[in-house]
Amino acid sequence: MKVEDIKLEWLKGKGPNSNIAVSSRIRLARNLKAYPFPSVAKRSDLEGVVKEIRELLHKDPYFKPFSVLMLGELSQIEREALVEKHLISPDHANNGDKRYGALLVEEEGVLSMMINEEDHLRIQCFLGGLQLSEAWRIIDQFDSILEKYIDYAFDEEFGYLTSCPTNVGTGLRASVMLHLPALTIAKKIGRVIEELSKLGLTVRGLYGEGTGAIGNLYQISNQITLGPSEEEVVDKIEKIALRVIEEEELTRKHILKLKGLELEDSIWRAYGILKHARLISSKEAMELLSKVRMGVDMGILPAIDKNKLNELIIKIRPAHLQLSIGKELSPEERDKFRADLIRSSFTGGEK
Amino acid sequence: MKVEDIKLEWLKGKGPNSNIAVSSRIRLARNLKAYPFPSVAKRSDLEGVVKEIRELLHKDPYFKPFSVLMLGELSQIEREALVEKHLISPDHANNGDKRYGALLVEEEGVLSMMINEEDHLRIQCFLGGLQLSEAWRIIDQFDSILEKYIDYAFDEEFGYLTSCPTNVGTGLRASVMLHLPALTIAKKIGRVIEELSKLGLTVRGLYGEGTGAIGNLYQISNQITLGPSEEEVVDKIEKIALRVIEEEELTRKHILKLKGLELEDSIWRAYGILKHARLISSKEAMELLSKVRMGVDMGILPAIDKNKLNELIIKIRPAHLQLSIGKELSPEERDKFRADLIRSSFTGGEK
Repeated sequence: MKVEDIKLEWLKGKGPNSNIAVSSRIRLARNLKAYPFPSVAKRSDLEGVVKEIRELLHKDPYFKPFSVLMLGELSQIEREALVEKHLISPDHANNGDKRYGALLVEEEGVLSMMINEEDHLRIQCFLGGLQLSEAWRIIDQFDSILEKYIDYAFDEEFGYLTSCPTNVGTGLRASVMLHLPALTIAKKIGRVIEELSKLGLTVRGLYGEGTGAIGNLYQISNQITLGPSEEEVVDKIEKIALRVIEEEELTRKHILKLKGLELEDSIWRAYGILKHARLISSKEAMELLSKVRMGVDMGILPAIDKNKLNELIIKIRPAHLQLSIGKELSPEERDKFRADLIRSSFTGGEK
Repeated sequence: MKVEDIKLEWLKGKGPNSNIAVSSRIRLARNLKAYPFPSVAKRSDLEGVVKEIRELLHKDPYFKPFSVLMLGELSQIEREALVEKHLISPDHANNGDKRYGALLVEEEGVLSMMINEEDHLRIQCFLGGLQLSEAWRIIDQFDSILEKYIDYAFDEEFGYLTSCPTNVGTGLRASVMLHLPALTIAKKIGRVIEELSKLGLTVRGLYGEGTGAIGNLYQISNQITLGPSEEEVVDKIEKIALRVIEEEELTRKHILKLKGLELEDSIWRAYGILKHARLISSKEAMELLSKVRMGVDMGILPAIDKNKLNELIIKIRPAHLQLSIGKELSPEERDKFRADLIRSSFTGGEK
């Protein structure tokens, strides 16, 4: 499987509340009892982990749609593209080859697994909309089938053992990516983040820790893995996400009532610029796409396929642009191709 | 004739060099020997002046296409619209009714004449493109026919006598309105203005003295009315205007070569915003229209009728908007109707 061929199910924009809930994601940290954690493992240990996973693909028909990509065999741009797809971490992209790092992916783009990252296995399930329970059901099944063949590092008292103590227990992180432009415009987002933090949740930008909320996309996830059960965590985040979604919707109506024309103007301008610009940075593109997404949701703009809007979030990023053009591009060239890509995407796609 | 029905020949965008030379304009200041200047005239004198002009309309078939509008019979918005059309001065709009002020206009919108402004008569000829000599020919003919019936205040030594000494002599002011976006972008315009000033020319914005160069439109006109003949003044300004036009064209090519993509981007964005905005100030609209005009001239944008672009310069102004909607509008309402007008104008009009 080539990096550019990897599909991502969540981009289809299906699932409940997919207007505001762009995606739901669960990841499980797992380690193999037989090997030391990757940070202290020898080369032969790391090879052993990959070998065990590779062998699985033939052991159980469940794994038929999956394949393994070795990071060391990929170009720098391909690895960056995997980060842009949220399939591997930046650390895995940069240091994965030294650790004999790999990625397990499947055709449908729902399940994936980093191999030899911080933990031996980092399983991930990614769905569109707000459907953490469904993501949990899918990843739990995967995890159970894996467990039939693999001996996990597990402690009766602490649960799953992980390289970093913050993941010990369930090893689960559940997160929802929410598109919150109205809360941002109305300057309510700071208060929302504060409240979420009091509830034990973390709020991050599109590309994880330390990245700003580019394009008004916020990831909400749990901080704690020790104590509550998987179902409790999933249920809690889903409920809280629903409340945030509701607040975003109310705020949209409020802005529409108070400053409807300004809002419409700003949305139509964003649309007009995306359809006509010849150069555009990814930051500006994300800001304008955020407005367009809101405009479509609110019925201000003509319907644009959500799949197309989601895909652009990924396709306009540097590595994806370079992968699609087939060569390295300077930042200015990227701005040009990004604008070309967005224009052609919009011109072909109005309904 | 109603104010909204007054056509303006120069808006058609015809004439030599009409890409950059938006219009050519000549005005002559004239006074009637039999009456004191308007500033010191009695009501009966001012009435006398208007009466003489009114009578002319029947005396000579040349004046058949002309009619007289009394400023006192017009609404404030109608008077402002006449200012926006460059047919009367702001002073004439504000104080004209007190002075029994009037406007003589003709169907084709080439010739017009303010009556009882600073001088008894201010004749004006307005053509599209760079054609001051032709404007001079037309206005000279008008002036000669007028002179057959009217006894001008004329002095053998000084020439035509005027209310303000700066107009004594020929009473002629010739001006060319140039669209100079490239010289502005390249920050060369300051030097150009300085040079023109050394040559005895004045540079003003679209709406005369003290107005900035809104939409990169600059009016170049003579300062001196005493000394050189009419033909010399007209010839000098025409030649200098040609040199400025050439410099603008060279600068456009230069920018296209050095920063072509940035220029294209900025032009296409302007076009995209004008086609999609729901609210727009007249200042922003003029800036964007300037880019679009340049983009069309340079073949970057699809052809847009120059008549349409010229008309928008006038139609988007406050009084014209209110006249076309038929009621007074708040500034925010104007921004809305202005955006609506521009959108419909662009959507209907791509070739």
